[in-house]
Amino acid sequence: MGPLEMFGMYPQRFRLTLVSEAGGTIASAQGPRVVTERCSQEQRFDIVLVPGGEGTRREIDNATLLQWLADQARTCRMMTSVCTGAVLLARAGLLDGRRATTNKRAFDWVAAHGPRVQWVRKARWVEDGRFWTASGVSAGMDMALAMIGALLGPEAAEEAALWAEYDWHRDAEWDPFAMAGIED
Amino acid sequence: MGPLEMFGMYPQRFRLTLVSEAGGTIASAQGPRVVTERCSQEQRFDIVLVPGGEGTRREIDNATLLQWLADQARTCRMMTSVCTGAVLLARAGLLDGRRATTNKRAFDWVAAHGPRVQWVRKARWVEDGRFWTASGVSAGMDMALAMIGALLGPEAAEEAALWAEYDWHRDAEWDPFAMAGIED
Repeated sequence: MGPLEMFGMYPQRFRLTLVSEAGGTIASAQGPRVVTERCSQEQRFDIVLVPGGEGTRREIDNATLLQWLADQARTCRMMTSVCTGAVLLARAGLLDGRRATTNKRAFDWVAAHGPRVQWVRKARWVEDGRFWTASGVSAGMDMALAMIGALLGPEAAEEAALWAEYDWHRDAEWDPFAMAGIED
Repeated sequence: MGPLEMFGMYPQRFRLTLVSEAGGTIASAQGPRVVTERCSQEQRFDIVLVPGGEGTRREIDNATLLQWLADQARTCRMMTSVCTGAVLLARAGLLDGRRATTNKRAFDWVAAHGPRVQWVRKARWVEDGRFWTASGVSAGMDMALAMIGALLGPEAAEEAALWAEYDWHRDAEWDPFAMAGIED
């Protein structure tokens, strides 16, 4: 949700849609429930953002979901993940041969699911072509601002950070959490 | 949502409930819709967090909502706001004679609605007894971590920040955004 809030600062520029395999109400591991649309091949997105969290662990063999991601990746402008969401991009084969990162506290688990991915251990986020992967959820906020900067210009990103009073890390390679990357 | 994600790191300790006046599905100004319960006098909360954003502007004369906040404030352990959410605490009279803060980009508008509040212009967040008010949404994440520290101990706050890879500002008086507090 943190990264989404950054895009949400520009409702005229970004229309945010939450989707899920079956549609309807989806609860996060933390409890709050959101309303989603059922994802379909017909509905195309410019940007796809795959969130992380507990829920990713049970979706790594979900062929329907992985196929939907691969299909959107053919046409979307940016395919992105936050935290352990990278594991689903990896399982869909979308990161093969690409540089990518993920949450430092779950790094080895995610990396094991993408043996052909060039996993970057020290990075706030990694941009490789259309594929943007962020580390933890807060790194996802930094990445979202970088994406807003790339799409709407740097002033728009600065303005969003100011409104959120967010101490934005503009350097994708700034990463003190790489040191703290002890597996749970 | 950013502050909620911090509490959400401890689902065994914090049960998160989203409430609204009428209950049901509520859309944020950014678009995403959440499922809420109808707020009632009978349901008591330990912590009440009032979010900010566009929506606060049309609620400043909502007597039912303000009365509900005042009623919860009689018994809750912590009454908190993020961003312009402080305007509703102020309108409910809950901040009278207390120190409080709000988003620096909307500061004068909020402050005008609480003439008996000691508004603090330079603060990431302000704690005054049971009343905690944060500046922008990111300041709310810092405040949430400080609250987690106060309730569960400092190690729990550090652990939540590490998992989120959040560059946590532990000092409530750190506030570069006070300088940027130009009214829109």
